[in-house]
Amino acid sequence: MGERALIDWLRRRISPNPAVVIGPGDDAALLARRGDIAVTADAFLEGTHFPHGADPAKVGHKVIAASVSDIAAMGCRPLASFVTVGLPQGTSETAVQALAEAMVAAAEKYGAPIAGGDVTSWNGPLSLSVTVLGDTENFAPARRSGAKPGDHILVTGELGGSLLGRHFEAPPRVQEGLFLNRQAGVHSMIDISDGLATDLGHLAEESGVGAVIRETAVPVAAAAAELSRSDGVPPLDHALNDGEDFELLCTAPPATARAAFARWNFELPLTEIGEIIEGHAVLIERRDGTREPLEPGGYEHHWQKR
Amino acid sequence: MGERALIDWLRRRISPNPAVVIGPGDDAALLARRGDIAVTADAFLEGTHFPHGADPAKVGHKVIAASVSDIAAMGCRPLASFVTVGLPQGTSETAVQALAEAMVAAAEKYGAPIAGGDVTSWNGPLSLSVTVLGDTENFAPARRSGAKPGDHILVTGELGGSLLGRHFEAPPRVQEGLFLNRQAGVHSMIDISDGLATDLGHLAEESGVGAVIRETAVPVAAAAAELSRSDGVPPLDHALNDGEDFELLCTAPPATARAAFARWNFELPLTEIGEIIEGHAVLIERRDGTREPLEPGGYEHHWQKR
Repeated sequence: MGERALIDWLRRRISPNPAVVIGPGDDAALLARRGDIAVTADAFLEGTHFPHGADPAKVGHKVIAASVSDIAAMGCRPLASFVTVGLPQGTSETAVQALAEAMVAAAEKYGAPIAGGDVTSWNGPLSLSVTVLGDTENFAPARRSGAKPGDHILVTGELGGSLLGRHFEAPPRVQEGLFLNRQAGVHSMIDISDGLATDLGHLAEESGVGAVIRETAVPVAAAAAELSRSDGVPPLDHALNDGEDFELLCTAPPATARAAFARWNFELPLTEIGEIIEGHAVLIERRDGTREPLEPGGYEHHWQKR
Repeated sequence: MGERALIDWLRRRISPNPAVVIGPGDDAALLARRGDIAVTADAFLEGTHFPHGADPAKVGHKVIAASVSDIAAMGCRPLASFVTVGLPQGTSETAVQALAEAMVAAAEKYGAPIAGGDVTSWNGPLSLSVTVLGDTENFAPARRSGAKPGDHILVTGELGGSLLGRHFEAPPRVQEGLFLNRQAGVHSMIDISDGLATDLGHLAEESGVGAVIRETAVPVAAAAAELSRSDGVPPLDHALNDGEDFELLCTAPPATARAAFARWNFELPLTEIGEIIEGHAVLIERRDGTREPLEPGGYEHHWQKR
């Protein structure tokens, strides 16, 4: 299947969507008039963002889910995706179709149907780039930079051990992000892609504040304990440092946080793990009440640590 | 300079723009409310879209200009750009800065300031992806698919020989695209990236029509003649088949075409080269009046033919 045939196949495979006035095939796509538009663009590179030889269906899901997660972290509704693909020469037709099918399915599942992009064979590893547009629906987007001292720090779901499979499979928290951004008074939000410690550090830095989290409050995933049994790293450290959980971290004043807990109606947990403080220190409070710096440990893509 | 430092450098380098409410640095950028949004996304891969070892400043200009050209070909106004970069490990800081500086400068020059994206080092050749958003300004975008029998075929500028340098330097025809799309009755438009013969074929195919162009009418660039002296290929063949001229090809009924010529006030020429016909044949009328099929010859990136 040549590039042209692949693009034609994709055009047939993509469902009509009222938000996409012109889809793939013209010089540009056209999206119907909306409010302000949130836009995220990320590269996904073989050997860096996913292992060499990874299952193309898993890669296809991951690149869409991770990109939609950035829109979820703004508290916006996904609108459409654009994907460019640099395919290694000699990639099998089966692999190409599995990759494309997974991207199309994930994009539709998460409300961001593929509306354009291109596919080119080249003399390099698999290189993908995904741009997702989101609709603010007339709510101010939740930024990284709005946290204020006294805010409670909330996190969705459970953290750590995504290396065991979740980094490929984690769904973006779209509905949860919309919910959190609609609670009057939410100050800031970020998705956990580089690890809780690193991303909390990003949020604190952008907001010009410090933060303290309690180690006993961090929701540790079962996968973190499972991974601990094989690598000896404490489950909490996995929860603090493993990237690609794609859960949401948000901050809100106590009254807003209480209201969010009262209205929370999703299957996954929402957990209060600490609070925003004056200054610039990002701290962890140990079981015995002592506080120490929370060192970012998750910046590298965690599967590379193996 | 690490990735983080590079992104910080880019954030300082990018001028404030009223259309970009949130620029690089958050989970997503935010663009101010507009009308419908045109979106184009393209990959630019070392060794495929530009030669190995090409001047990074030239590459930086080209990837932005070629992407903005797709927005121009819809008759829309560029709004913002998003760029993802996969950098070969060991790329010099000088090269990275030259690439980044050229992209930032071109994006501002053509009205599509960079509003987000990311930069990652990896174990592969230079891989770039550019997404450009455009504002329809409440005009219906000029599609590839609207050509009708009887339309005149108009082309901006002069064609051929872009290999001698123009493929790196050609500016997108933004103002010309806006002008042409505002002429009441323009039916279709495309930019010439794969060569006149190939792109006229795309336009005819998408519109379900045929076309005939006169060989004596095609505006042949001086560079096509210059290249002909070294490679022996007739200048006309260069004008028909060389890609990456980034000129605009549009079709309009005769009265609209006449009005466009009367109002045309740009330094570059506007030329009527033929007309849209019933059927599906794409033909060239030779000097002696005979007609023969116009075979697409420019699909490959032309610098690869060397």
